[in-house]
Order: sequence, then structure tokens, then C-alpha cells
Amino acid sequence: MTKPLLIQGATVVNADREFKADVLCVDGQIAAVGPDLEAPAGADKLDGSGRYLMPGGIDPHTHMQLPFMGTVTRDDFFSGTAAALAGGTTSIIDFVIPDPQEPLMDAYRKWRGWAEKAASDYAFHVAITWWGDSVHRDMGTLVNEEGVNSFKHFMAYKNAIMCDDETLVNSFRRSLELGAMPTVHAENGELVFLLQAEMKAKGILGPEGHPLSRPPAVEAEAAQRAIAIADVLNVPIYIVHVSSAESAEAIARARARGQRVYGEVLAGHLVIDDSVYRDPDFVKAAAHVMSPPFRAKGHGQMLWRGLQSGSLHTTATDHCTFCAEQKAAGKDDFSKIPNGCGGVEERMAVLWHEGVNGGKLTPSEFVAVTSANAARLFNLYPKKGLIAAGADADLVLWDPAATQTLSVKTQHSLGDYNIFEGMTVQGKATHTLTRGHLAWADGDLRAVRGAGQYLKRAPFAPQFAPLARKAELEQPVPVAR
Amino acid sequence: MTKPLLIQGATVVNADREFKADVLCVDGQIAAVGPDLEAPAGADKLDGSGRYLMPGGIDPHTHMQLPFMGTVTRDDFFSGTAAALAGGTTSIIDFVIPDPQEPLMDAYRKWRGWAEKAASDYAFHVAITWWGDSVHRDMGTLVNEEGVNSFKHFMAYKNAIMCDDETLVNSFRRSLELGAMPTVHAENGELVFLLQAEMKAKGILGPEGHPLSRPPAVEAEAAQRAIAIADVLNVPIYIVHVSSAESAEAIARARARGQRVYGEVLAGHLVIDDSVYRDPDFVKAAAHVMSPPFRAKGHGQMLWRGLQSGSLHTTATDHCTFCAEQKAAGKDDFSKIPNGCGGVEERMAVLWHEGVNGGKLTPSEFVAVTSANAARLFNLYPKKGLIAAGADADLVLWDPAATQTLSVKTQHSLGDYNIFEGMTVQGKATHTLTRGHLAWADGDLRAVRGAGQYLKRAPFAPQFAPLARKAELEQPVPVAR
Amino acid sequence: MTKPLLIQGATVVNADREFKADVLCVDGQIAAVGPDLEAPAGADKLDGSGRYLMPGGIDPHTHMQLPFMGTVTRDDFFSGTAAALAGGTTSIIDFVIPDPQEPLMDAYRKWRGWAEKAASDYAFHVAITWWGDSVHRDMGTLVNEEGVNSFKHFMAYKNAIMCDDETLVNSFRRSLELGAMPTVHAENGELVFLLQAEMKAKGILGPEGHPLSRPPAVEAEAAQRAIAIADVLNVPIYIVHVSSAESAEAIARARARGQRVYGEVLAGHLVIDDSVYRDPDFVKAAAHVMSPPFRAKGHGQMLWRGLQSGSLHTTATDHCTFCAEQKAAGKDDFSKIPNGCGGVEERMAVLWHEGVNGGKLTPSEFVAVTSANAARLFNLYPKKGLIAAGADADLVLWDPAATQTLSVKTQHSLGDYNIFEGMTVQGKATHTLTRGHLAWADGDLRAVRGAGQYLKRAPFAPQFAPLARKAELEQPVPVAR
Amino acid sequence: MTKPLLIQGATVVNADREFKADVLCVDGQIAAVGPDLEAPAGADKLDGSGRYLMPGGIDPHTHMQLPFMGTVTRDDFFSGTAAALAGGTTSIIDFVIPDPQEPLMDAYRKWRGWAEKAASDYAFHVAITWWGDSVHRDMGTLVNEEGVNSFKHFMAYKNAIMCDDETLVNSFRRSLELGAMPTVHAENGELVFLLQAEMKAKGILGPEGHPLSRPPAVEAEAAQRAIAIADVLNVPIYIVHVSSAESAEAIARARARGQRVYGEVLAGHLVIDDSVYRDPDFVKAAAHVMSPPFRAKGHGQMLWRGLQSGSLHTTATDHCTFCAEQKAAGKDDFSKIPNGCGGVEERMAVLWHEGVNGGKLTPSEFVAVTSANAARLFNLYPKKGLIAAGADADLVLWDPAATQTLSVKTQHSLGDYNIFEGMTVQGKATHTLTRGHLAWADGDLRAVRGAGQYLKRAPFAPQFAPLARKAELEQPVPVAR
Repeated sequence: MTKPLLIQGATVVNADREFKADVLCVDGQIAAVGPDLEAPAGADKLDGSGRYLMPGGIDPHTHMQLPFMGTVTRDDFFSGTAAALAGGTTSIIDFVIPDPQEPLMDAYRKWRGWAEKAASDYAFHVAITWWGDSVHRDMGTLVNEEGVNSFKHFMAYKNAIMCDDETLVNSFRRSLELGAMPTVHAENGELVFLLQAEMKAKGILGPEGHPLSRPPAVEAEAAQRAIAIADVLNVPIYIVHVSSAESAEAIARARARGQRVYGEVLAGHLVIDDSVYRDPDFVKAAAHVMSPPFRAKGHGQMLWRGLQSGSLHTTATDHCTFCAEQKAAGKDDFSKIPNGCGGVEERMAVLWHEGVNGGKLTPSEFVAVTSANAARLFNLYPKKGLIAAGADADLVLWDPAATQTLSVKTQHSLGDYNIFEGMTVQGKATHTLTRGHLAWADGDLRAVRGAGQYLKRAPFAPQFAPLARKAELEQPVPVAR
Repeated sequence: MTKPLLIQGATVVNADREFKADVLCVDGQIAAVGPDLEAPAGADKLDGSGRYLMPGGIDPHTHMQLPFMGTVTRDDFFSGTAAALAGGTTSIIDFVIPDPQEPLMDAYRKWRGWAEKAASDYAFHVAITWWGDSVHRDMGTLVNEEGVNSFKHFMAYKNAIMCDDETLVNSFRRSLELGAMPTVHAENGELVFLLQAEMKAKGILGPEGHPLSRPPAVEAEAAQRAIAIADVLNVPIYIVHVSSAESAEAIARARARGQRVYGEVLAGHLVIDDSVYRDPDFVKAAAHVMSPPFRAKGHGQMLWRGLQSGSLHTTATDHCTFCAEQKAAGKDDFSKIPNGCGGVEERMAVLWHEGVNGGKLTPSEFVAVTSANAARLFNLYPKKGLIAAGADADLVLWDPAATQTLSVKTQHSLGDYNIFEGMTVQGKATHTLTRGHLAWADGDLRAVRGAGQYLKRAPFAPQFAPLARKAELEQPVPVAR
Repeated sequence: MTKPLLIQGATVVNADREFKADVLCVDGQIAAVGPDLEAPAGADKLDGSGRYLMPGGIDPHTHMQLPFMGTVTRDDFFSGTAAALAGGTTSIIDFVIPDPQEPLMDAYRKWRGWAEKAASDYAFHVAITWWGDSVHRDMGTLVNEEGVNSFKHFMAYKNAIMCDDETLVNSFRRSLELGAMPTVHAENGELVFLLQAEMKAKGILGPEGHPLSRPPAVEAEAAQRAIAIADVLNVPIYIVHVSSAESAEAIARARARGQRVYGEVLAGHLVIDDSVYRDPDFVKAAAHVMSPPFRAKGHGQMLWRGLQSGSLHTTATDHCTFCAEQKAAGKDDFSKIPNGCGGVEERMAVLWHEGVNGGKLTPSEFVAVTSANAARLFNLYPKKGLIAAGADADLVLWDPAATQTLSVKTQHSLGDYNIFEGMTVQGKATHTLTRGHLAWADGDLRAVRGAGQYLKRAPFAPQFAPLARKAELEQPVPVAR
Repeated sequence: MTKPLLIQGATVVNADREFKADVLCVDGQIAAVGPDLEAPAGADKLDGSGRYLMPGGIDPHTHMQLPFMGTVTRDDFFSGTAAALAGGTTSIIDFVIPDPQEPLMDAYRKWRGWAEKAASDYAFHVAITWWGDSVHRDMGTLVNEEGVNSFKHFMAYKNAIMCDDETLVNSFRRSLELGAMPTVHAENGELVFLLQAEMKAKGILGPEGHPLSRPPAVEAEAAQRAIAIADVLNVPIYIVHVSSAESAEAIARARARGQRVYGEVLAGHLVIDDSVYRDPDFVKAAAHVMSPPFRAKGHGQMLWRGLQSGSLHTTATDHCTFCAEQKAAGKDDFSKIPNGCGGVEERMAVLWHEGVNGGKLTPSEFVAVTSANAARLFNLYPKKGLIAAGADADLVLWDPAATQTLSVKTQHSLGDYNIFEGMTVQGKATHTLTRGHLAWADGDLRAVRGAGQYLKRAPFAPQFAPLARKAELEQPVPVAR
């Protein structure tokens, strides 16, 4: 049992406000929040003066230990979550990705097994990569018995895990029935497939072909399609890794019509542009291959605006650390480069530096987009995403004055590349608590293998209530003839 | 040989201007346009004073003699084009619709045969309902040898003629190569399929289920998808029968980005709303079943705005006259009601009354949206769509003071229903000339069976030039590594 | 001293979440929130089971006791705030409106005096109706010494209290410097002036002339102007009583660019349309004369969407109860009808019924738009707008099952007209506490004259921090030449 | 009398189409257009093979011989129009700018006198810089007797020629009555005034302060205001020199609502960006000072899109050649640099190179935006802007293969700076005819002083008809009480 810990004198930041208070953590939970709290006998103390104390980050989009052609990404659930803790992130939501025709429950159990070594808490979105009666049934089991409340749909990756519209439509319908949030990777896989072939036919074989085969319109089309389908079916929808202005605008337009659409942005898409793909060094260019790709300058600015205006809601990383050797599979054909970049460790610092220091976000808005909003949308709130008595003691103590230079040399992730390499940021997680355990303290990483817990998430998050009521009000009535 | 005809004293209206002039027609063509023309020996004269003389209407969307389960629509190519002439329309573009797996050329020849009896000139869009090497090849033959410069794609009608994205993408690519305009019927067929099933499961079996299973978002999704695919593939795109505000906005947005997107509106969608589907009389409700369906009030206003602002370009009818007996096939299941309504005869009058009299369009804009724009987009201009020496003498003399009440009782179409029944409009075609022949004169219909000619249309209309240049300028360049 | 009160078993609703908890109120504040709280000795208990317990409503836009040509509105600060309490609203923000050339401090003191009789807490926006050195100075005094953190600007009412652009620009600049929020009544006063004259010249003298002289474009123009000026000057901006789709869109567009623009909606504009102005009964038509006027059907729907998507933030009433006798001043000239309607008592019920029951808002979103957002924007949070230990015990206990029919006959406001007359709503404030005092209990109004306190509001609410940072980052640099 | 001229074998380009034809010019007009025309006796011939023959350009926005503090711009009406002819432009519309309180007719006569020396045809917009009964009356005289059909309103230049809203509103109303098009220079003068003062207070004294004091939002605000006022008053509106994406979007939005709004773009704004203002050379930086200023990269692209989509209509130059000596008046205070740049000679070449060669415009669209649209909007069509029998023989023969490098060294304008300096463009006017006179022939400028004629323009261009009808249909009706 962890000793009680009293964090004193920090400015507590929640999504709704900032205030000076002490925070007492007992038995993995926040026991009290208030001025001048008494430390219980035997409690440790941590001086928070001059610092912000915030809910630990939630990264709702990671791929730890992702299998790929007989090998896996560098970071497994332990190293990946440990790196997360070092950066102030205390929960991840990873993905179960069944092969087509693979029973969902089989894949789910496989991933649950892999995740047991995690150092922080974790949950899973489950991907719907095919359709059938067993899929329909297993979705029910996952929601009702296993605490899964979100499903993922890949609109890209033709001939692999791509969903066609028939599957999308069926799965969205089933999700609504179960109270689970459908999420989509929005890229039109048919277009990507054609453009990849055309680029190669034109002699474009290197990583520069990657963004050329996935232009913004390819993403926006799919986002719009998913949003329209969700609208027609009266189901909420969450678009993962929105990378382009066009896609962000599609979300904003739908929201302006009152639709319950939610958008996620990756830290990388906020600050990196597509010039990386034309780097003469294949290793560097390939290290940035992920989908959707980094975009031309200007897109990032629009993504920030989405976070500011509330039309985008969460920030994530799509952390997926393929190493140079794995990336080399696409040396002569960009379409064979495994997709993925790291970032789970750097997200909070990048967001703070560019967002808060950059005059775009208040500290409370930072908490909303790094933690509270993800917790709310995926029904982890207020256990996660909030500093209040009764919540999990997942906390990050933040020094707004400290600077750090992000680098593969100093990172804790086992990935061999850092997409933020050399970026100096002001603002740093000095201490991170995961359910009361001080897993990161002034540069000392004390992550515990297997200490993380699987987070069961209840269905029917609050956003479903108005949808249910809308359905009730809009019941069609036959005409008597 | 028709006698020369001199039309005197009318106000000539072209898409760019109005002016007083005489117009002399000789041998089926306009021989001269100017003030105080001399009538050649033996010429007839027609007094145009107090009237407008305009290019004959072009209806770019009709289905004459459409086969359906062993029967056909009431209007064949003769009766349909005769009705068109009575309303001031002198050319139609109909559709060749191959069955899936049917060779395009077979279907094309079948339709060409049917159309020989037409009384006005006509052309064909050819539908791409499946994909294969022969389709790729036949598209080339149609464009290069048969004068087809546009292809149609149905994004709805699952399990029948619906195109999937793979076919869309391949056909658009091929169209660009050939200089042919891709056109789409924009509705998401998967959603329609699901919603039809759901409506029926809820006991909605009558025609009121038709619009409920095809809400505006179903149309807008498909329009956006087609536009996005066209954008990515750098091909122009023409959306047929835009019926909803959402779809019109999708076009306007794309155009504001500089994309070459074109939209067509049906006369019916401009003035009729979806209350018709709740009519207690099945015959009336079913008579209005077409896709996309009539929409809630308000959509029509947005379509007018599209015509005014230039984001929508042409007006058509989708003339397709299934009769009550045929419609009765869906007596107990709305999804079995054959889709189609008439209108080829009323379009010009409805557009004039609501558009020009309604303070929305100038007479020149009326000519643009009823004739000149279609001619330009499908490369029939200036042979059609313009009053100028050298153009075909396809003309309509228009009395802006005359009123008429539209009705099935007085129409020339053989259809048994008139969707504009009882509407009194001011403005009327008093005379119509098709290549110089006076086919409609003060209520006397003198349409000649078989007098119509097939219009060969050259590929690469002017809108293709900037696209070709854009492609040239945007050639991707590989990175040297 | 009020006795402690323990409210047991209700579902507490804050803007971020709902949860079951007891709430203990002691000495006017919330002392504890949690499960199964112990009642202190002598405490009263209130059974909240089956009910929601929410932060008391904040109406950020009222005009109690507004002087008008030697008379005043019916509701003074006592009767008006008492009515508010009966409807679950526990704070109002009223307006100090200096005459042109009147020193701000004089007007401020006058209003403070009038407000001493208030039964609920209250604050003031101060209107800037003219410009001069003393205005500049008094704005500083008001912010730094008197706890005013918002200023109001009327862009309409030519020849009376209308601000010209020069005053707007100067006052916005000064507001930014002081950390105060500029707010605007957005209507173009020059256009209103011209249109009023034109309507009268056309013989339109009755209340139907009111909306005709203030069409939506008149409002949208001013909203856009104020937003643009705020953007250029890098100051936040709050648009009061957004009534039209066009104006709501202007706000949404600006927010999508990342601008800190906030919008307020009146309960009346959400549910009433402009048909009222054509009522043959002058009394009814005139009773609805307020500016901006009620709008055509359809606008209300867009306002709801703004609340749903977060581009509109607060709900208010513009409560201003001129009676029939006063309204009769405009019997023969609509432009002389004093502008104003009631609503402070009905707002919460109307919002709940149409919003929550109507499938548009979650209960938490209801709290956000009726209370928490206003508290945050005007820096009253978390003292107001939140149920948490330490906050003021301003609470409303809400029975979602109870229905009531709104009527002038049963209202507590002294106004002689109820714009919601006859509307039956489900959801009702059964008990209201103002700083711990049970001022409304099951139909018994126990409002205490003078019990309300003036709310001093600190400047520099959180939304100012990013603006300050932006200004710092965008400092212009001269070019060396 | 000029000899007849037969231009043979060129591709004639009108706004609606291209076609091969000979063009015969007799007595200053086009006598015939057609294949294989016979040359009349004594006619000259010009070989147009391999070239385009287009309507001469119309520059609807120039300031020749503009008075400024006792001096004038370098180009007078002769040198300016001669330069225009050398670039293919055959008509200009210049501005009469009365001083405040100066009678309009006095100013008008002064400008008419100055213009008598023009070498090409010309017309005048008259600026409304103040309001009064004489202004109201003189507007009538100008329209009804002097052939002026457009009025200009400066929304900037406080304390000089700026219109306040009262004047705008009155003048727009009067314009509608007279059938004249109101036009606006859209910048919010109050904001410019404040920002200029603030920039200077911050030590920004050089030309870099110019764009800083006139950001895009300052322009967009005014554009939106003018559009909204025009909408409310039911009058068409033309926005001169649209320079920013925001302003172009405001126009596009209004057009999408069906409003008759028209936009003009300057050649310079299409290709030059705001980096010029930070040039260390004062002369260069100051030479680019004009209002609205050149904008950040990206805006130009949006302006092109406006031209492509038809939401912007005309291209102009705002040709106004202050020389370095005059610009030096603002050596120590950017706000004193006289505003103006040249371009009348280069516009056509810049538009062709970037537009047609750049894959943005078809040749017909080029004619529309350089000539035909201006002619239509200002009712000069078809006398100007069209190649057809009866039109003025204002023609430009265009060699699409020729290249030229634009430079002050080779220009014919007397200005001492060329904002397109060093730009190499492909496409060149080889011959220009003004009413049949060959004023520019293969590098030989034969402009004739005083040969230009004043163009009387009739009121009520076609765009007024729908507005009149709309007004008729929307007559308000009083309620009987």
C-alpha cells in the first residue's frame, strides 16, 4: 500500500478553473482537495509551490506492442506506459485490432494479455474490421461484460483492415444500440490505393510518395462520410487523428448543425509539417511515415483553432514505434513502410508549450484537451480527468518555468526516433502519480511493470441521452390510407 | 426542306444579354441576327413583337422509354420529345443504362435504336454500372467514335446499378483521360438500403417511407464523396438533380476552393415540397416518388440561390413517366414503387414564372440555366444554347404576358400525372422551332416523328483545359536519395 | 443566521457531470458535497430524491426598475429578483445606462441605490453611451474599485444611447487594458433609423413595423462589426441577445478562427416567432416589442444549435417589464413602443423543457448555459455556477417530472404580460436557495427585500490570459532602414 | 477616318466561347465576324494566325492625373491610357472624387476636362464623400444627364473622404432609385486611424506600419458592413479591390444567399505579397504602399479561387502613379505616404500568365474577368467587352507564345516604379485597337492624345430587374387593427 501523499501549495488546474489548494492522496485516490490540508500520520509531502497540479494526461490513441509481420513495435505496454508517465500521461486507450474474420473476443483476449505488463492504467477501443453475426454478438459482449464503450473503424487500408460502407453502417447502428461510441480513422482507402499505384507508376517510390497518395481531400472525404452516416443513424461519432483543415472544418460544420461529433488531434500534427517527407535521409523521412501524414504548413494552425473553439476535443499521439529496421521494409516502395510515430511521452509538453505559452489555450483548456475531455467522452470521468475528492490520484505536477529539449537521446520510450527531436519547450512534468504512486519524480522513472489496471468503461456516456430523446421525438408515423 | 423563316421584332435573349433583333432561319440554322433583316424570297414571317426569342431549352436529364420489368415508361422518345417541344425545349440528353455485366456498346446501341423516333435532337449520357476491361475499352469507343462526352454514376440503388467507390474511382480516372464529364446521382445507397429496411420494420410501408429513407444527409454525403474523389483525381464533376440545401452547399464550398464542380436542379425540386408524400391518396403520393425525393420547404429556396449565385448551373426534369398502374407495384412497400416523375414540358414555364417573375433571375440568367450552360458543359455550344448566326435554329418564342394553368388534362406528355397540376404560371412558349421547323405554334403541336438527330458531342469541353494545365504544373517529383 | 440545511439524495448536476450526493449548506455557503453526509445539529433537511440539484440560474441580462420618460418598468429590483428566485434564478447581471454626457459614476451610484432592495445577488454591466476623458477614467474606477468587469455598447438607438464606431473602438481598447469584457447590443442603428422612417412612410404604423425595420441582416452586420473590431484589437467580445441565424453564424465563424467570441441567447428568442407582431390585438403585438425582435421560424432552431455546439454560451431574458399602458405610447407609431419583455422567472423552465426534454441538451449542458458559463465569463465562478464546497449556496432543486403552465396569472413578476402564456412545460424549480436561504419552497415565495448582495467581479477572467500572451508574441518590430 | 481592317485567322475569344474567325473593323466598329471574310477595298489586313483575338481589356479602377497636395500622379489621362493600350486595355473607368462639401457637378466637370486628353475611351465612377441635398440632386443629374451609373464610397480615410454609415445608407438608397451601382472601398477607417496611432506610438514609423495598421479584418469588416447594408436596402453592391481571403469569403457568402454582390480584384493583389513592406529599401517599400495593402501569402490564392468560382468578377489595377519624391512625404511617418501603385499596362499579361498558363482560367474566363464582366456590370456591354458585329472595335491580338519581362525600364507608363519588376510572363498583347485604330502594333505605340471618348453609361443594368421585382413582391402590408 502506497503511503499517503500531501501535495502542498500548487495551483490546481481542472478543466473548469484554477485554484490554489493542497491535494491529499490516500490509497490511490484523492482523499481531499482544499486549503491548508493536514497531512495524515506517515504521509509524504510534496512541495507544489510555483507549479501547476493537473489531472494526469489521457492519451486516447496509442498502439503499444503492435504486431507487424512477425515482429512488434519497439514499445510494449510496459515501456510505452512508463514513457507516458515520464511525460505526465497516466492513462492510455489502446486498440484491439482483429484480423478480418478473426473473432473479436479472441483478439480482445490477446491484447488484454499483452497489456498486463502496463505501468499505467489502460483501456481498449476494439476495431471492427469485418462484419458478421459473431461480430454483432461480440460487440454486445464487449460492451456489456468487458467494459468496452468504443469501437474503431478504419476507412483506409484496402485489402487489409478497411471497413466498407456496409460494415460501417451496421457497426454504427449496433454501437448506438449498445451505447458505445463509434470512432473512425478517416481516409478513403480506394483513393489511397489508386494514388499509391499512380505515384509508383510515375517513379515516386520514396517516402515523399506517402503524403502525395494521401492528400487532405482523401481524409476530408472520409470524415464527411462518417459524419453523415452518424448523422443519419443518430449516433455520436469521434474522428481520430484529424490532421487537415478540411477535415476539421467538416467537424465544425456538423457541430454547428448541432450534431454530436468529436475530434481528436495528434501532438505531431499540431507542430510538424510535411517537409519531412522530402528529407534526403530515408531514415528520417520514413520515421515520419504515419497516416494521415503530416500536412503542409497552415493545417496545424487550423487544428489549434479547432481546439480553441471547441470543435476539436482531445489530443493524442497514435504512439506506434516502428524502428528504422522495420521502416526499411519500404526502402523501395513507400507503401510498404510500416506506419507509425512515437510521442506518448512528449504530448503534454508540446501541447503546453505551443498551446499555453503560445497564447492559444488557458491552463484549464489544456487540461480539457489533454485529459478531461477524453475522460468524459469515453466515460472515465470523474474517476479520471479531474482533481476532486474520490477521483483516482492520477496527477501531474507541472513546472511552467522549466525548459527541456526533446530528444531520442533522453526519451524513455524505446523507439529509435523522436519526431520532436531538438524542440526546446518550456513547461515540464516534474512528478507524475498513477493512482497515488509517484512513478516519475524529478527525472527518476519509477514505473512499475504490471501496476496498471484495465479500465472498464460503462456504456451510454452522457452524450447519448439527447440522442435517445431525439430518436424518441422523431419516431416516424405511418400515413393512414 | 423547311422554308426560310424570319422572326421579327422580338427581344432576343442570350445568356450574356438581351437585344431587339430579327432572326432569320434558313435550312435549319440561324442565318442572320440583326435589326430589320430582309426576308428572303419565299420566307415565312413570324411576328415576335412583345415577346422574347430565346435558345430552345436543353433538358440534360430525361429518361424516355425507360424499360422496367418488362414494361416501359409511358413517354417514348417521340411523345417525350414532342411534349418537350410544346414546352419550348428542343434538345434532351437521355441516359443509356447498361445492366451490370452488360457490355456498354450493346446497351448504347439499344438506346440509339429506341431514340430514332425522337422529334427533337437528343444525346446520351452513358451510365457506368459495373467495372471491367471491356467497360474501360467501351468508354473509349463511346467517346472517340460515338460522340458521348459524359458518363453517369449511380451512387444509390444497391444490388442493382449502384457503383461502389472502386468503380467510381476507376471510371472518373478514365473519364479524365478521355475528356468526358463524369456525372453522379448522389445518394448513399448503403444508407438508403438500411433505412428502407428500418422504416419497413417500423411499419412504415407507404410512400411516406420514401423520403424518410432518403434524408438530405444521404444525398449530401454522396455529393461530397463524389466531389472529393473528383478533386483528388483532378477531374470536373457534374452532380445531377441536386435537391437539398446540404448538397448545394457542398457544391458551393468546392467551387469556392476553385474546383470545377457543376450542379443540376430539377424544376420539381424548386417548387414542390415533401408534404406530397403524406397525401392520403396513394396515387398522388406514389406519383411523386422519385429520387432524391421532394424535400421540406426551405430546400427549394436554397436551390434557387444556387442558380442565382452560379453555384448551380443547369435545370432539368429527370422526366420519367411511370403510370399509376406501374407505381402500384409498391402499394404495400414504398421501396418497390418505380421512381420517376414527368416535367419535360413544364420546366421552362415553371422556371420563368418562379425565376424571372419571382425576382430571382434575369431573362439572360434564365437562358443560362435552361439552355446555354448545359450546352457549354456538354460541349454542344454554340450549335445549341445560343442565338447567333451559324447556330442551329432551335428557338422558343416566349410570351411573358400569357398565363397558363399546368395540368395533366392539357399536357402533351403521355404520362398520367402532372406534378405541377393546377399551378398557374405567367410566361409561355408560343412557338418552338427545332432546327428551323416550327414544331409548336400557338397551341398546335407539329412534332415530326424521327425528325430529331443524335447529337455527337466532342470531348474535352473548355473546362478541361485548366485541369490539364494543373496536372502538368503539379507533376510530382521524386526526391533523390 | 440561516440554519444549516442538508439536501439529501438528489442528483447533483454541474456543468461537467451529474452524480448522486448530499449537499450541506452552512452560513450561506456550500459546506460539503458527498455521499451520506451527516446533518449538523439543528440542521434542516430537504429531501432531494428523484430530483436534480443544480447551481442557481444566472441571468446575465436584465433591466429591473428601468427608468423611461418619468416612469419605470413594473418590476423593481425586489419584485424582479423575487420572481427570478421563484423560477430558480439566483443571480442577475443588470445594466447601468448613463445618459449621453452623464458621468458614469453618477449613473452607477444611482443604479446601486435602486438595487439595494434586491432579494437575490446582483451585479452590473455598465453601458458606454458616449466618449470622453471622464469616461476613460471612470471605466478604470469601476473596474478597479467597484468590481465591474464588463461594459455594454448599444450599436442601435440612434439619437439616444447609440455608440458610434469611434466610441466602440476606444472603449474596447480601454476594456482590454482593464481586463473587462466588452459586450454589445448588435443592431445597425443607422439602418434601423432609415427603415423605421420608410415603414412609416409606407403606412406601416403598427407593431408589425417593428420587425420589418430590424431584419436579421441589421443584427448580423453589427455583430460582425463588433467581432471584427474585437479581433483587430485583440479583446474578447460578448454579444448579447443573439436572435438570428445570421448573427449566430457570425459568432461561429469567428470562433472557428480561434477568436474568443461569446454569445448570449434569450429564452424568448428560442421559442417564440415573429408571427406575434401581426396579431390583430395591439396589446399582444406591442407586448412582444423588444429588440432584436422575435424572428421567423427557423432562427430559433439555429440558436439551439449554437448552444449545443458551444458557439453560444449563455441564456438570459433581457427582462424589462413595460406594461400595456406604457406600450400604448406607440399606439400610432411602432417606433415609440418602449422595448422590453419579461421572462426572468420562466427562463429555466423553458430551457429545460425545450432543451433537455427536447433532446438538445444534457442536464450538464443545461447548467452550463443557464449558470456556469455566465459565471465563468464574468468571473463569478466558482462562487457562483458550481456546486462544490466553498461555493455560495445558490441552488435550485428541480423536479423533472412536474409540469406547469406558464401564465401571467400565476407569475410572480409584476409585469402584466407573459410572453410564454399558456405554454405547458415539464420540469420545475421546487426549491430555490439564495446563499443558503430557502427563498422558494414548493410554491411558497419567501424572498427577502434587500437580502441580495452586490457582486464584485474581478477583472481579467481566464479568457484574457491567452490574449495577453498573443499580444506579447505579436509585438510589431520596426524595420531598420 | 481609319481604314477598314481585316484581322484574319485568329482564334476569337469571347466570354462564352472560343472560335476561329476573321474580324472586320470598319469605322471604329466591328462590321463582321466570320470565317473567310472578304476584305473591303482599301482595307488593311492583319494576320492573327496562332494568336487569340480578344475584347480589349477594361480596367474599372484607375486614378489618372490624381491631384495630391498641389501636385498630381505621374500619369495623366493621356500617358495612362496610352500605357493601357500598350498592354491591351482599351477602356478605363476612373474616379471623380469631390472634396467634402464640394459640389459633385463641379468635381465632375473638372475631371471631365482633365480626361479630354485620353487616348482610349473612359468613364467615371463618382465618389460620394459627403451628404446633403445637393448631393442627392447631383446624383440624379449625373445619372440622368451625364451617363454615370456608379458611385464610389470610401469607408476609410477618416478626416478626409471617409463616408460614415449615415451617408452610406442615404447614398445606397439614392443609387437604387436611380439605377446606379454603389461601389465601396472597404476598410474600417476608425480602426485604421487607431492602429496607425498605435503603431506610431510603438515606434513603427516605416512602411512596415502600413499593413500592420490595415489587417485583413479591417477590410473584411467594412466589406461585410457594405454588403449587409446593400442587402437590407435591396441594392446591388460592388466591392472594389478585394485583397483578402476574409473579404472574398464575405462576398461568396452573400452570393450564396442569392445577393447581387460583385467583387473586383487588382492584378497586384493576385501576385504580390506583403513581404515588400519589410524591404530595407524605403523607396521599394513605399512604392508598394496602397490600400488595401498587399497581403500575406495565401490571400492571393483565395482571390484566384474567387475569380474561378465566379464570386469575384472583375480585375483592375487602381493605377495611381505617385513617384518616389511624392512617396517621400512619408519618410518618417508611413501614414503620410501617398497611397498608390501602377499596373494598368501589365494587368492583362499578369492575368494571362498566372491565370491561363497557371491552370486557373480558360481563355474565355480570362476575357470575362478582364473585360466582359466589367462591361456588363457597368452597362457598357455589348458595345465593349464582346467581339461581335456592331460592337466597338476595341480589340487585343494576343500572342500566347511570346514572353516578356515586365520592368519600369520598358514600360510606357510615366510612373517611376513597376510593382511587377522582373517578372517574366508568357503571353503578350502584340496589337491593340481602340475603336478600330491600331494604337499598339508590335511594340510601336501609336496612341493619339484626345482620341478617347467619354463613355456614357445607361442606368439600370440588367442586375437591377430582379431587385425591382423583389421589392415589388416584398411590399409590406399593414395589419388591420
